[in-house]
Order: sequence, then structure tokens, then C-alpha cells
Amino acid sequence: MDKILRIDVSGARPSFKEEGLGEYAGLGGRALTSAVVNAEVPADCHPLGPENKLVIAPGMLSGTAAVNSGRLSVGCKSPLTGGIKEANAGGQAAQVLAKLGYAAVILEGERSGDDLYVVRISKDGVKIEADSSVRMLTNYQLAEKFKDEYSKNGSMISIGTAGEMRMANSTVAVTDPEGRPTRHAGRGGVGAVMGSKGIKTILVDGAGAKMLQPKDPEKFKAANKVFTEGLQKHPVTGQGLPTYGTNILTNVVNEAGAYPSYNFKTGRYKDAAKISGEAQAELETKRGGNPTHGCHRGCVMRCSGVFVDKDGNYVTKQPEYETVWSHGGNCGICDLDEIARLDFLDDDYGLDTIEMGATIGVAMEAGLLEFGDAQKAIDLVHEVGKGTPLGRILGSGTGATAKAFGLERAPVVKNQAMPAYDPRAVKGVGVTYATTPMGADHTAGYAVTANILKVGGEVDPLKAEGQVDLSRNLQIATAAVDATGMCLFVAFAVLDQPETFQALIDMLNAMYGLELTADDVSELGKSILKNERDFNARAGFTAAHDRLPRYFRREALEPHNVTFDISDDELDTVFNW
Amino acid sequence: MDKILRIDVSGARPSFKEEGLGEYAGLGGRALTSAVVNAEVPADCHPLGPENKLVIAPGMLSGTAAVNSGRLSVGCKSPLTGGIKEANAGGQAAQVLAKLGYAAVILEGERSGDDLYVVRISKDGVKIEADSSVRMLTNYQLAEKFKDEYSKNGSMISIGTAGEMRMANSTVAVTDPEGRPTRHAGRGGVGAVMGSKGIKTILVDGAGAKMLQPKDPEKFKAANKVFTEGLQKHPVTGQGLPTYGTNILTNVVNEAGAYPSYNFKTGRYKDAAKISGEAQAELETKRGGNPTHGCHRGCVMRCSGVFVDKDGNYVTKQPEYETVWSHGGNCGICDLDEIARLDFLDDDYGLDTIEMGATIGVAMEAGLLEFGDAQKAIDLVHEVGKGTPLGRILGSGTGATAKAFGLERAPVVKNQAMPAYDPRAVKGVGVTYATTPMGADHTAGYAVTANILKVGGEVDPLKAEGQVDLSRNLQIATAAVDATGMCLFVAFAVLDQPETFQALIDMLNAMYGLELTADDVSELGKSILKNERDFNARAGFTAAHDRLPRYFRREALEPHNVTFDISDDELDTVFNW
Repeated sequence: MDKILRIDVSGARPSFKEEGLGEYAGLGGRALTSAVVNAEVPADCHPLGPENKLVIAPGMLSGTAAVNSGRLSVGCKSPLTGGIKEANAGGQAAQVLAKLGYAAVILEGERSGDDLYVVRISKDGVKIEADSSVRMLTNYQLAEKFKDEYSKNGSMISIGTAGEMRMANSTVAVTDPEGRPTRHAGRGGVGAVMGSKGIKTILVDGAGAKMLQPKDPEKFKAANKVFTEGLQKHPVTGQGLPTYGTNILTNVVNEAGAYPSYNFKTGRYKDAAKISGEAQAELETKRGGNPTHGCHRGCVMRCSGVFVDKDGNYVTKQPEYETVWSHGGNCGICDLDEIARLDFLDDDYGLDTIEMGATIGVAMEAGLLEFGDAQKAIDLVHEVGKGTPLGRILGSGTGATAKAFGLERAPVVKNQAMPAYDPRAVKGVGVTYATTPMGADHTAGYAVTANILKVGGEVDPLKAEGQVDLSRNLQIATAAVDATGMCLFVAFAVLDQPETFQALIDMLNAMYGLELTADDVSELGKSILKNERDFNARAGFTAAHDRLPRYFRREALEPHNVTFDISDDELDTVFNW
Repeated sequence: MDKILRIDVSGARPSFKEEGLGEYAGLGGRALTSAVVNAEVPADCHPLGPENKLVIAPGMLSGTAAVNSGRLSVGCKSPLTGGIKEANAGGQAAQVLAKLGYAAVILEGERSGDDLYVVRISKDGVKIEADSSVRMLTNYQLAEKFKDEYSKNGSMISIGTAGEMRMANSTVAVTDPEGRPTRHAGRGGVGAVMGSKGIKTILVDGAGAKMLQPKDPEKFKAANKVFTEGLQKHPVTGQGLPTYGTNILTNVVNEAGAYPSYNFKTGRYKDAAKISGEAQAELETKRGGNPTHGCHRGCVMRCSGVFVDKDGNYVTKQPEYETVWSHGGNCGICDLDEIARLDFLDDDYGLDTIEMGATIGVAMEAGLLEFGDAQKAIDLVHEVGKGTPLGRILGSGTGATAKAFGLERAPVVKNQAMPAYDPRAVKGVGVTYATTPMGADHTAGYAVTANILKVGGEVDPLKAEGQVDLSRNLQIATAAVDATGMCLFVAFAVLDQPETFQALIDMLNAMYGLELTADDVSELGKSILKNERDFNARAGFTAAHDRLPRYFRREALEPHNVTFDISDDELDTVFNW
């Protein structure tokens, strides 16, 4: 993993070159994407203009024997937030790219004309070809078209119609072990940047590519064993996630009164039980689906799954907690089949499920449809995927939709929609939403851990005390984890079990012949955040952007009757370390 | 003019109170609106939320015998830019409000329900009544409905359907001497803020209201005489504007190669002569319209006019240069009748003509219609006025439209569309676009004067040298003029003729019993800009926002083959005084 593949779309047709890592040596995943974007993309450029770049990077442990190391980071200047963006996805591509030796694939330059291109990467080299037949294909249509090329040994990275239309809500999709485009670098409109470069699909063929070998194989193997055991013995990663998937959180967060319902109007949803992970797993099992499945080979947590209809036919991957929430409780929809249908459409058109569901919630508040109207919600997603005028509004995201309909109540930070945790009742997450360089993003500092799950400590979710420290520490740790290619869920075990954390460090050291300490890992996280904040500052972001919308301070949330009451001054200390 | 009328829309129905000027004593127009907004509106609030306020203020000389003192300032946090906004309009309202003693009318508080209200202000007091019959009426429909109440002695301030729907492109309309809603505080979506307060119409009845008396009547009268003579003898204000209106600029700017055509693709428009002020005035005269008309009583420049159809029937007021440009050359439309129709529709629905035309130009680039397709352009404006999904996109402004269709080429600064002067070929205006707190706005520092018209000096429009100084001085002077209630066009005479400038100062001194010097007037301008920049800084604006879109640096403009080449460092010195 010592090469960067640069694909320049300027000129009559795209060209490519391969080069060494140079100044980026030693970086992977989010550390690499944020370093490249900060160094090479002018902060004041237009996200869809020629100066922006799309950086696709496996993590530092991707392509090795390390379990759960299959995350693929996708970075750029975000069309949604206008700031730096790293979104990452599971699926097979990170492993394959890493095994082929690529630390990053960078799409850059100015597209001429409107041809669409298919990129093929294998051990035999790189091919880039114009292909008019892919125009306005969805992700599942692309998967069907190209499955023979990648499904056995490789993976497909692609954009659906949303990315092709350069919508601010558009994802980069990655196929799973079954070759389905179910894993998405979802947030921030990364798909639109790929679309702006005219690259529709990247087919990565791993045939003949070998697993990456550690500098110290014995030490690596031993550490990987300890790490795996750590994941398997922790109740969240060893039991909760495998059995129920991420949707196990519905009942938990709803019980905590932090489940944003009806466009963030209340913190409890009366029909939460109907769409809970327990109900979902039971339904899947009964129908012959599968609630326990890995999104990439080498995963031991297997929190993904397969959702089938009443006849046992594939509908979509098991919808994640945030998806079930965004289209479910947030929209007053309590039917798992309807939610699964929405999940499929989001994946197929290439839409971020969080942003899409939050957008529909705003559309409901605007009166375009009633809360609870699942069929109309499905119709709306089709409008987005087909690019009708209404679809263009909704595809521009939650903030743009609220603006188009003249509403204040847009649950966004830096124009990105808040996920499935109300910041008034999980205040640590509120701090993360407000301050992460990414825009509202639970994964950037998942304070649900100590706030609700009692993992990695315990901080009262309803009080202001301790939330800034909690979010700061999690944001640093998360940035580091996002550099490794590890699934973020390893954090549950890493936070609670010192030996699991040490095993992760040991793997990095064994792989690269390093002597990193826990402090070094923390420094890595800080350096990533520093790059990201540096970019954002030059793009015009200030402390004024590290805020929640005012109505979260004004409107109290039932059932705890809480507002977001962490002061601006406190928020401004998050990055004082 | 010693009262502020505060209308609070909170509670079951709006209430009002009158109070003294207090800390705002001595301020008028833009000085007053920007002071109130900066002091009372939290910079981080949502423009359509309860914390925003709409401040409507006549100028310091409004309501007096001073000629051309009929500008009405409208201020708020802008729904379009997210920064502070002052937009001003001619028409009758400023004079009448001033004569009734109101230095400002402030709409504030949180609207409950969706009732719409009509406010009536007369010497007998203030009445506020819910009126369901005004819902989704256009400005001309409102004028027809209420004409008996205001057309003889008063004025109507209103929002069309765009403001009622809280669109980011929506104006506050003011009626002219004939009672027509032809004068608009156009820029920045001020109409949406009025809409967010549920106030559809303010009827101002001047019956029995007396002209305001100066502290020193003789001195005032003498100064007004010198001032009037100054306007009448200057070639621009005494001849060009009365004869041809503002559209006299079409040939001038086109000849200079600074006429942005086809969505800012080229600086000359082949059919400019067909839509020039000369052609327009000739057509109006031939048909029995009127090219020489004042937008309010007491105007001696009379640059407005009346546009009639071939049968002599009223179509709209004489479209301004910027309107003829935005819907004309910018869209490749060269038919004055079609442009007049578009102007009428903009006024009727309550849309800023600059923003609307620039938006249609972007829609043309997006492929929604062909450049030059006037009928389709008219259809699009109807979509906006009726609030269809496509209309919601376009009504959200030029930047939002480009975003919805995934285009980089949005000619906006701070999300507000650039007017009719290409910043690459009139670089002083480019500096103003980039740096004014208002977003791209020619009126904020009209460097066309020295760049092209050779008024107030001479600075080569194609070179970087001298533009920052020029823009700085004009921005300061303009802010001061905008405080007086004077039409900005007095600046042509004021800049060239020292005695005309002195007469303006003399009028202020005679009116208020002051001893202002030219330096004091400059200090007033600086203090206004300081308020505005203070607000914007707290709203999150930085130097990164004082920039043109990068493509103005990348793409050269024909015929002079120039890019915008004033460095960021230079731009950052504009407010160093």
C-alpha cells in the first residue's frame, strides 16, 4: 500500500498516473484523505469545480489480516457543508484496493464534456473508458451490469443517479461480500464530487492480489487474536450488534427520551417498539432473512443483515438504526417493510439515509405530505432519484429543503442533518454535532457511549457537565480510528477494555514496524482534526458555525423537558487540548 | 420623526407600542436599520425565526422639503445571505411615514398560527387586523384592493406571494405616486422576513400629516435650492437619467465590454442596442408611455418611467437598467416587450429583478430552457410566484438554483446575485461585490462612476490599481447617503460638484440644528459599515466570504480577455481606514 493513483479528468479524456506516497507516507484512511484535501484543495474552491478532489483511501490496517479493517474513507470539500469532509463506508473495496497496493485513489481536474467513465483497477493496471450505457443507472443496476467483473474477487465503487446529478445529498456506494451496493460513504454529498468528475463507477478486481504482510508477523497475529477476543467478549460488539444490528438502539434511545420524533418535535416515539432492532431481527429470522451478517469479509461483529419480504425475497440490507430512525420515528412511519423499501431506494439512487429521512421530515413539516405517509415518502425519494424539480430540492438536503419552503426548523449543523440522537437529551452528542468539522455527525464523537450506554465511563446525558470533555476525547479517538480502517464499533470494546486498545496499537506497530504509544495515537487523532479545522477556517468557518440552530435552545424536548444549554463559551473549548 | 412603532406579532394577535428613539436618536435610513439589527437581532438567529426583526426606516431628510429624499430603508438579517441587510426603495412611503413622525416601524416577535395581517397607520393611530382575503394576493392585486385607502395621500408597503411564501428572493414593495407597487426594497429576501411575521400589507395614510420643518428654515431652503440646481446641471442627473432612465447604461456598459451576457460568459451582448435606454425611451414615447417620471413626489431627476404596450396600455414601470440586463442580455433576450412583461411579473409577485434574472440565467445554463427563450422565462417567473416545486428552487435565489442543479457557475457573493456589471471588466465594482457586507451589490459602492462614467475621478476599469481605494471611499459615502433618505443617484452630482455635496450637508445641519462637516458625514458612513461588519462577523462571516467565486479568476472575459486579479490581500484592506 505504497502507491497513490491519480486520475485526472482534464483534457479530452481522463488520464492517470501512479506515484509514491511522498509527504503522505504513513497515513491512511481519514488521516490521508484530510491531509490531501487540506494540502491540495484550495479551501475557497467550489465543491463541484475543477479544484476540488475526491480522495478514496483504505485505512492503515486495510488489506491485512486484521479483523474489521475494511473501512474505506472518502474525502473532499463537501458540496453539502462547504467544509472538509471524510465519510467512510464498509464493504469490500478497502481491502481490495489495499491489497492492490493503493493507499489512495484521487479523482482530480476539470471534466470536459459530459461523458461518463468507468475505471477498472486490477493487478494488471488501470483502464479508464467512456461508457454511455451507464448514464442514469442506479447502483443496483450498475451492480447487475458489472457483477461478473467484480463480484467474485473484487468490489464496485459507484454513484447512483443522485451523484451523477451532482446533488448535495449523494453518496459513494461500495459493494458488500455479495456484490450488493449496500455500504455507503453517505454524508456530505461525496457522490456529487465523483459525479462532477464524470466517474460513474470504479471496478476493483482483487484477483491475484495478496494480503498485506506485517513487518512482524508473529506479533501481528498475536495482537489480532487479542483484539478479536476483545470484540467477541464485549457485550455490545459480541452480543448486541451481532444479534440485532445497530437497530438495537431504537428501544434504548427511545427509552432515554432522546429519540427525535416528528422532525425533532419530541424525544419519544409511541411506535418505537414496532421498528426496534428486536422486532426487525425477529421479522428477518421468521422470513428467512439474516440479522447477523458482515458488511465485509473479516468482520467478527457482523452487525449488518439481510432484509427480505414476506415471500423471502431480498429487499435491502438490514436497515441501520439511523436509517430506521430517519425514515421511521422522525417521519412518524412505523412499518419496517416501508422503511426497508426506503432504505433500498436510498441505496439504489445513492442517497444518504440520514439526510434523506431528515429532509422528508422537514417536507412533512412544510405540509408536502402528512407525518406517517409512507407511500408519499417513497414517492418523494423517487422524485429525488429521477431529478424532478421537487426531487432537486429534496436532493439538495435538509437545510436547502427548509429554505425552499421558508421554514426555520431545519435540524442541521453546517447544513448537514442531525442523526438519530436529539442533542437536547444526549448532550455529549450535541457537543459533537456542533463542533465537529464534519457538520452534524454522530460518528465523529459518539457520546452516546458514556451518555446512554455506560461504555467508556458515565456522563449524565441531560446535564451540561462533562459533555465537552467527553466529546473532545471521543472526537480525537474517532479521528484516529478512522485512520486505521477499523470499523468505528471497535471503540465499544476499545473504550472499556485496555487490553483491546493495546492490541489495536500492537497491530499497527507490528504491521509497520513502529513503536507507537497510546499518546501517539491520540496525537494522530489531533493532527487529523487540526488539518480539518485548518481547512475549514480557510473556507470561512468560525466559532459561529460551531453551534446548533437556536431553536434547540428555545424549544424544550419531551419527555425530559430539556433544551440544549451548553454555552457557546464551553463549546469553544472543545479543541483546546 | 421622533417615534419608533414596534409591532410585536407574538401572542394570539399582533400588538404594537410606540416609543422614543432613545439610543437611536439622530439616526435614519440605513444608519438606523443597521443599528437596530446589530443591537437587537442575535447574529446567529435564523432569518425566518422569531428573533429576527424587520426594520423599516425613512431617511434623515425624508418628510422634509428636500428634493429626492424619498428612500425607504428596510433592514433585517437576510434570508438570502445570512448576513445583515439593508435594501432601500423609492416610492411614497418614506415621505408619509416621516411626516407621520415615524423614524422606524419594526416588525418583531414570533408569529403564532398562519393568519395574515393588514396594518393601517395614519395620524389617528395604528390598526392591525387579520384579513384572510389578502392570502396569496400579488402586489398589484393588493394595490387594486386597497387603493382607495392610500392612493390619494399615502402609500402601501406590501409583500407579494414570494414574500408570503418566505422565499429567499422576495421584496418589500412600495407604491409610487400613482399608487402602483413599482418600487422595491429588492435585495436579500427582506420580503420573506415580513412574510415570516405574517404582515402582508402596511397602509400608510398621510392625510393631515404635515411636512417636517427644519430648525433653520432659511438655511434649509437655500441649501435645497443649491442642491436642486446641482442635480439639474450635472449631465448624468440633469440630462441622462431624466431622458433615458437608468437604462442609458446598456450601451455604455456594453461598449465598455463589461456587460455580463449569457450568465456571465461574455462582456458584450450582440443585441444590446435593441434593449438600450435609447431604444426604450423611443418606444415608450412613440406608444404614449412616459420615459421621464419620478418614483416619488419631490424627485427632480425623474429617472423612472411608464412602459406601455403597442396599444398604449400600461404594462409596467419603465424597467431599470439592471432589470433590462438581468432578463435581457444575461438571458440572451432582446425584446423590450418581453423584458417589460418579466419586470411586471417580478413586481407583482414581489421578486428582486436582479436575483430573478440571474437565477433564470443559471437555469438556462442548467438546460431548463434555452438562452433567449423569453416565453419560457416568463413561465418560470409564474412558477416562482405560484410556488410550484420548480418555483421554490428558483425563488430561493441564484446560488440555491445552481446548487440544486449541480452547477459551479453561480455569479453570487455571499449567496446574492451579482448585478449588471462584470467584475472582471469593472474591477472597482468587483471589489464592492466581494467586500460589501450586503453580498454582491452594485449600489453599495458604485465604482462604475470612476471606472466607466468618469464621474468623481478616473480609474482604469481593467486594471487592479486604485480599485480598493475607490471602492472603500464609495462604500463609506454610500452608507452615509443611504442614511439620509436621498436617492443614491445624487452621488453623481455630489461626487463631481463640491458645492452640491456641501448643500447636502447644509440641509442636514439646517434640518437638525447640527454642525456636521464632510468628515462627520464620512464618519457616519464608517459607523454604519462598522455596525454591519460587526453583525456579520458574529454571524460567522470572515475574509473568506469577501471573495468572488473562483471562476471569475479562472475564466477570462471577452472582449478584453480579463480575469478578476485583485489579490485577496488587497481585498482585505478595504475596511482599513
